[in-house]
Amino acid sequence: MNEKVKAIQSNSRSELRQLVRDQLQLLLEQGNLEGAKALLVPVQPVDIAEAIEALPQSMQVIAFRLLVKEEAIAVYEYLESTVQQALIEHFKQQEVREIVDQMSPDDRARLFDELPAKVVRRLLEQLSPEERQTTALLLGYEEDTAGRIMTPEYISLKETFTVGQTLERIRTLSTTSEIIYYLYVTDSSRHLSGIVSLKDLVLSSPETTLGEIMTRDLVYVNTDDDQEEVARIIQRYDLLAVPVVDREQRLVGVVTVDDVIDILQEEATEDIYALGGVQSDGDNYFQTDLFTVARKRVVWLLILLLTNTVTGTIIKSQVGLLEQMAILTAFIPLLTGTGGNVGAQSSTVVIRGLNTDDMRDLGPGQVVLRELGAGALLGLILGSLATVWAYGLQGNWLVSISVGISLVAIAILASVAGSALPFLFRALGLDPALMSAPFITTAVDVIGVLIYFSIARFMLGL
Amino acid sequence: MNEKVKAIQSNSRSELRQLVRDQLQLLLEQGNLEGAKALLVPVQPVDIAEAIEALPQSMQVIAFRLLVKEEAIAVYEYLESTVQQALIEHFKQQEVREIVDQMSPDDRARLFDELPAKVVRRLLEQLSPEERQTTALLLGYEEDTAGRIMTPEYISLKETFTVGQTLERIRTLSTTSEIIYYLYVTDSSRHLSGIVSLKDLVLSSPETTLGEIMTRDLVYVNTDDDQEEVARIIQRYDLLAVPVVDREQRLVGVVTVDDVIDILQEEATEDIYALGGVQSDGDNYFQTDLFTVARKRVVWLLILLLTNTVTGTIIKSQVGLLEQMAILTAFIPLLTGTGGNVGAQSSTVVIRGLNTDDMRDLGPGQVVLRELGAGALLGLILGSLATVWAYGLQGNWLVSISVGISLVAIAILASVAGSALPFLFRALGLDPALMSAPFITTAVDVIGVLIYFSIARFMLGL
Repeated sequence: MNEKVKAIQSNSRSELRQLVRDQLQLLLEQGNLEGAKALLVPVQPVDIAEAIEALPQSMQVIAFRLLVKEEAIAVYEYLESTVQQALIEHFKQQEVREIVDQMSPDDRARLFDELPAKVVRRLLEQLSPEERQTTALLLGYEEDTAGRIMTPEYISLKETFTVGQTLERIRTLSTTSEIIYYLYVTDSSRHLSGIVSLKDLVLSSPETTLGEIMTRDLVYVNTDDDQEEVARIIQRYDLLAVPVVDREQRLVGVVTVDDVIDILQEEATEDIYALGGVQSDGDNYFQTDLFTVARKRVVWLLILLLTNTVTGTIIKSQVGLLEQMAILTAFIPLLTGTGGNVGAQSSTVVIRGLNTDDMRDLGPGQVVLRELGAGALLGLILGSLATVWAYGLQGNWLVSISVGISLVAIAILASVAGSALPFLFRALGLDPALMSAPFITTAVDVIGVLIYFSIARFMLGL
Repeated sequence: MNEKVKAIQSNSRSELRQLVRDQLQLLLEQGNLEGAKALLVPVQPVDIAEAIEALPQSMQVIAFRLLVKEEAIAVYEYLESTVQQALIEHFKQQEVREIVDQMSPDDRARLFDELPAKVVRRLLEQLSPEERQTTALLLGYEEDTAGRIMTPEYISLKETFTVGQTLERIRTLSTTSEIIYYLYVTDSSRHLSGIVSLKDLVLSSPETTLGEIMTRDLVYVNTDDDQEEVARIIQRYDLLAVPVVDREQRLVGVVTVDDVIDILQEEATEDIYALGGVQSDGDNYFQTDLFTVARKRVVWLLILLLTNTVTGTIIKSQVGLLEQMAILTAFIPLLTGTGGNVGAQSSTVVIRGLNTDDMRDLGPGQVVLRELGAGALLGLILGSLATVWAYGLQGNWLVSISVGISLVAIAILASVAGSALPFLFRALGLDPALMSAPFITTAVDVIGVLIYFSIARFMLGL
């Protein structure tokens, strides 16, 4: 019952969006611009953006021009970068001034990142001097840092201002600064000294000074901090925005929670793709063509194919043994498969742990030791079962015990490798996610067959 | 340089936290309660919670009682549920009233979920009647729904109120309602009719009515909506909070963005763990003991072991073939490994796609067809390379071509299975993530060896 109700509700929402998309295209095809305009009035900007993206390219400009200025800016910020670029080519100078000049500086910096240098130069010339300077400032910071994703449009005030004065000031500044749930108090050299929330302001009497009500225990980030670090701080301290300071500790911008959610989502997708052996470049996998898909996947597959040929070569070198005892082959998939799975589990939890707060103060040594313990425990459980099954399959205790012992050894080795390699990669300055399930699985194959053949030879005296 | 600066900064932050932890324990051991109290004054509640969690259990109550009331509530909300429970056992009736009664209703509902029924009953008796009612209301909704995670403490107002009246009202209500960046306007039957942000309020003149400034294009969720759906809506529309309405469309609560970030993070961890074949139950993997770790991992390993025994049994049935041609064994890991990796890629992108907006309006048929195409393309590339390598290894073209053809067939099959099974599982009402990399990898092993042996027998005429 509950499941059903849920399905209806979430269907109705996406059905509504679908309806807007279809209706918009129909009205535009009929040339009914007034109707199309009326259709979009109650629709949220992000949903309008989605509807425009779904239109044939020739209609996208027409639809976009139906929007009133304020809304056009909001919708433009939500469009995919390919559609943003296509629209820009049709923009007249006046539209550049009305749309691009008025965008949030962080969204504009993101757009400029994607555009060809020539287009960026032309657009920069057309921007107002302040906006040009703001954009240049943001683009001066490295990608994926706090400086690049922040907006420099915040409200900063002096400690001596009263609440009444501040409210006056907000009313004058509100046209240029969009975010005002936190107000920042700075001293004469622009150093951040306190934060006042809009709530504190509303709850205080007009003659109180900001110095009396501001919070002095500040949480802030530096322009060079990685965007993931920024996201983690906003998440940890339950903030709606975090101030960004430069190396001289001067306030230069603000990162807001809505941008941070998107960053966390993207990073999670990247991690998940890496764990599945798919490259991710921030583009939507499902919106790219088949050759791009193949390109994103073939690199890892080639690396893994190469590793697999090593396993094949090892097995070939043991052909003599296998000719004497072909039944040994029957246990190869079990041993390499189980070893791969144990290793994949260890690398998965460690990689996720490195990207979240979960590991707390556990060091690499402690984590690897824990995984070794878990691997031994799991190896003993699975090894005992495998020994019994192997005996049932072919009735030779020596072979069965070889399988069991190999499985214990492989499980221990796999969990140690799976947990240690991500740490090693991080220490080398590489992405730990590269040491993910597909790689560990395949690497364990190689070592697994070596261990198995050695133990079998020893046990069987061959 | 940049890397180094980053490392120093993020180290200094966590070093600071480490310092607080160590100092707190030292001061408590010395019995210097005044010193400990002073140490914690400038520290953020979430960091105090972390420091208390790191203390030996006997000291946790002592440290917690150093906090002033307001801060104690905030810190308590951040503590892990095991520590919350340990503290509750020491709480006197007065502390229950000061702490538990004053917690956010959503945090309290989450705590009560974890506590034994007996303790919950005792605590409920000690709560004030309003808080008791609020808690019972939230606990009445199913777990992981909007109703369960919302807070019923919002400010609701009438359309006819002026801005001036509203500001007055906020000042009186602020002690009981914590979140006030959005104010909700309801009609006489408590139906939601509009939203006013604190910003709109501050920017408007005192005599304006709420009806004039409120937004009427509402985004809201229903009490039965899944928490993931709530998170996606807050993310999509860049909201700081979303109102929750009941089946009669009456406003009953609010879900805030900070809770949503934690939900998204938890869901991502769950997905990642599922992709790595690790069960997740919301507990922190790195904070549980070795036996819990083994339990979280052994179920999947046993299922996969069982599947692997099927592969082993199939190989055993082909022992005659292998005795004639032991070299065929050398290609088993390559074929099953590559097939597994292709299948893992497909299932990974589809599972992530089902949990995000990425798939847009692509249906299961279109997605599976795309994956089939990608699988064929990748199979052709990898199959050609494998054929050449196989010839190099053992010099028999018939065997090499068998390997190549098998690889193409296995890659197609793996990508179809990897993309179709998550859809199938979702259609059956099961978690698509169960059809993740480890499962697909192992399942492809079984079918892979069957295909390989059939093609090899046919090609070699054996």
